[in-house]
Amino acid sequence: MTTATRFTQALAPEFFDRVQERVRSRLVEENLDAILTDDPEDVAYLTGFFHHPCERPVAVWLAADGPTVLLTPRLERENAERQQARARIVSYVEFPGIEAPFATLATEVDRVGAGGGLRVGFTTHMTHERLAAVRRELPSAVYQPTTVVTRARYVKFDEEIALHREAARITDLMLDAGVALVREAVAAGGRLPSEAELASRVTGTGVSTMYAEHDNVVVVAPLAGGLVYAGPNSAFPHGLPSGYQLSPGDTFMLSLGCAVGGRFVEGERTFVLGTPTSDQIRFHDTIHRAQSIGGQAIRPGTECREANAACLAVIEEAGLGEYIRHRQGHGIGLGMHEPPWLEAGDETLLQPGMIVSNEPGIYVPGHAGYRISDSMLVTESGSVPLTAFPRGLVDCTIQL
Amino acid sequence: MTTATRFTQALAPEFFDRVQERVRSRLVEENLDAILTDDPEDVAYLTGFFHHPCERPVAVWLAADGPTVLLTPRLERENAERQQARARIVSYVEFPGIEAPFATLATEVDRVGAGGGLRVGFTTHMTHERLAAVRRELPSAVYQPTTVVTRARYVKFDEEIALHREAARITDLMLDAGVALVREAVAAGGRLPSEAELASRVTGTGVSTMYAEHDNVVVVAPLAGGLVYAGPNSAFPHGLPSGYQLSPGDTFMLSLGCAVGGRFVEGERTFVLGTPTSDQIRFHDTIHRAQSIGGQAIRPGTECREANAACLAVIEEAGLGEYIRHRQGHGIGLGMHEPPWLEAGDETLLQPGMIVSNEPGIYVPGHAGYRISDSMLVTESGSVPLTAFPRGLVDCTIQL
Repeated sequence: MTTATRFTQALAPEFFDRVQERVRSRLVEENLDAILTDDPEDVAYLTGFFHHPCERPVAVWLAADGPTVLLTPRLERENAERQQARARIVSYVEFPGIEAPFATLATEVDRVGAGGGLRVGFTTHMTHERLAAVRRELPSAVYQPTTVVTRARYVKFDEEIALHREAARITDLMLDAGVALVREAVAAGGRLPSEAELASRVTGTGVSTMYAEHDNVVVVAPLAGGLVYAGPNSAFPHGLPSGYQLSPGDTFMLSLGCAVGGRFVEGERTFVLGTPTSDQIRFHDTIHRAQSIGGQAIRPGTECREANAACLAVIEEAGLGEYIRHRQGHGIGLGMHEPPWLEAGDETLLQPGMIVSNEPGIYVPGHAGYRISDSMLVTESGSVPLTAFPRGLVDCTIQL
Repeated sequence: MTTATRFTQALAPEFFDRVQERVRSRLVEENLDAILTDDPEDVAYLTGFFHHPCERPVAVWLAADGPTVLLTPRLERENAERQQARARIVSYVEFPGIEAPFATLATEVDRVGAGGGLRVGFTTHMTHERLAAVRRELPSAVYQPTTVVTRARYVKFDEEIALHREAARITDLMLDAGVALVREAVAAGGRLPSEAELASRVTGTGVSTMYAEHDNVVVVAPLAGGLVYAGPNSAFPHGLPSGYQLSPGDTFMLSLGCAVGGRFVEGERTFVLGTPTSDQIRFHDTIHRAQSIGGQAIRPGTECREANAACLAVIEEAGLGEYIRHRQGHGIGLGMHEPPWLEAGDETLLQPGMIVSNEPGIYVPGHAGYRISDSMLVTESGSVPLTAFPRGLVDCTIQL
């Protein structure tokens, strides 16, 4: 592949200025002087710095009327500089440290003249331990929980949508690779692959595609991967892949995804190995219909709970409600799961530029699970799936 | 491999009774009536239930004088039952839900007669959002942060040590596999592997060994894997693997590990590809000596900060202090990183049965990083490394 066709996913410094501006403008509305977030996804969103989260705090301080400061351990300083983190970087020696990590941030905040009485919004994802550490070092501020960054992330910028589209393209390649592995085994008349072998093949396809075609791969956990279940194992929606080997007649699920520039996409399909039984046809057709009607319900101005209700009603009306184990879907972005939630308890209005999963499923204990998922981009007039792999049972049957 | 030689890592129900008894006895000392933890590692420790953490709360309520309750979403209920979670399981419908997830827990706690005024210790790892949700549903309790479960995990039970030993054996196999890939490429005179290809090979070896030889693989993130860096990339201690291809003369690092039964081990070695230069010899010998002296300092009755000081002093005395980026090490168990910390700010006394990493490193910008790590089991008389791969430069040189 020539350099010209390589995908460069680095976001320009100017992108982060716009992101920070979006958040700053909302701080004013919320009557906050600054926000503090140690959520790794927020940190990547605001500054472009990706890292492996651990006990050492990494946090962003963003003032409504002042600088953006990135706190890192010394260990990560050169890494943040190499990634051109869009912030002033300050670093502490180590964790837990003789001097507390947040003391370094406090010194910087004092230095830039943000004195006492500041109204500081902290992310609701901060742990009790971290928040207590912050309060000890910056005792004069007034703290209140805020979801301002979380909500700023709802509507994606165009550059982010481009990353999601590329992640969707690779997710489709991973689905192809999984199906190819099973077809090859069937054609060779040999041993069918295990869940673990399928998982290894699809992950390898995703990761190697990214390294082969992309400059500047930002590694997040997971870069590419998925849940692969077959037969009765697939009846556990978030079960863990096993060494179970596919058998003729099995229903199996490839629940895959990857992240490009840290932006996730999921693509999930349910397959039948051999001629489907009448039960397999009924189960598969029902979730296919639920996913189709659920997708039509994802449109601007609709509440998340309304889309969820329209989607799950299809399953209920087919008499399969007892096999529902989860909602229609969830937001997706820098987080593999992030709000808003397509669920009965979320009244958020869908807006153009949001990306949400559309993934109704049913789980028949002892038999199998059935789920079809696409990451849907909300548009001005409705929504479009980012992944393209066919969804219906005819295309998802692998004949023996 | 015959069934007889397979490794069965399932912990007996009786093991969890002993774990819970250890925590219960400490609740009395801390004057707590119950603890509540939503830390996924605590949940696995207390009940044996492993899951993929997400926004849906999973939590354990353990009463000093009452039952152990596991709260799960409906989605995970059958999964928890299949894993024989050692607790009474109660489940909520979905997240965020019309009825709040913690309302289900509150109902159960009320049902078992644990009325108002309870002194409830919550894990300091709980987020602000979760803690606020708990307080809303169980408003009559008195809450205080506690690290009682974190500290209960410090000293491993014999069954846990057996799991760590098995994880160490597999980590050694992964190191062998990484070295073999480079040696094969050198012998073939062909293209040298990239960091990503090395990472893929070693992870594949770890995962396939586990599935081939183990019953009941508990999948945690990551099951097996590591950071693989070469040349200047290796100078970023927690940098992210790239598509960088090994070159003659490079220093490269295999920083690997895996989890068996959820119990982690890390094993890290630094290699030179070709005849080492005098700088490479000086850097490698220095961290090898620091790791050796640091290992001798890990013994019962020594403070964590004392071991750290003895270890890092070797690097300082060699005149390489400017290249230090981190402490000697950290506790390891159900967490890849967990307290205690072998660092200047931690006075914890080492005790037999603790497992800590011993991993001094230096990072020379523009050149490379050097780190050697073993997970060390503290014994009655000192400590022993769980991984066995040779550490010295002679064994870690791959001649071209």
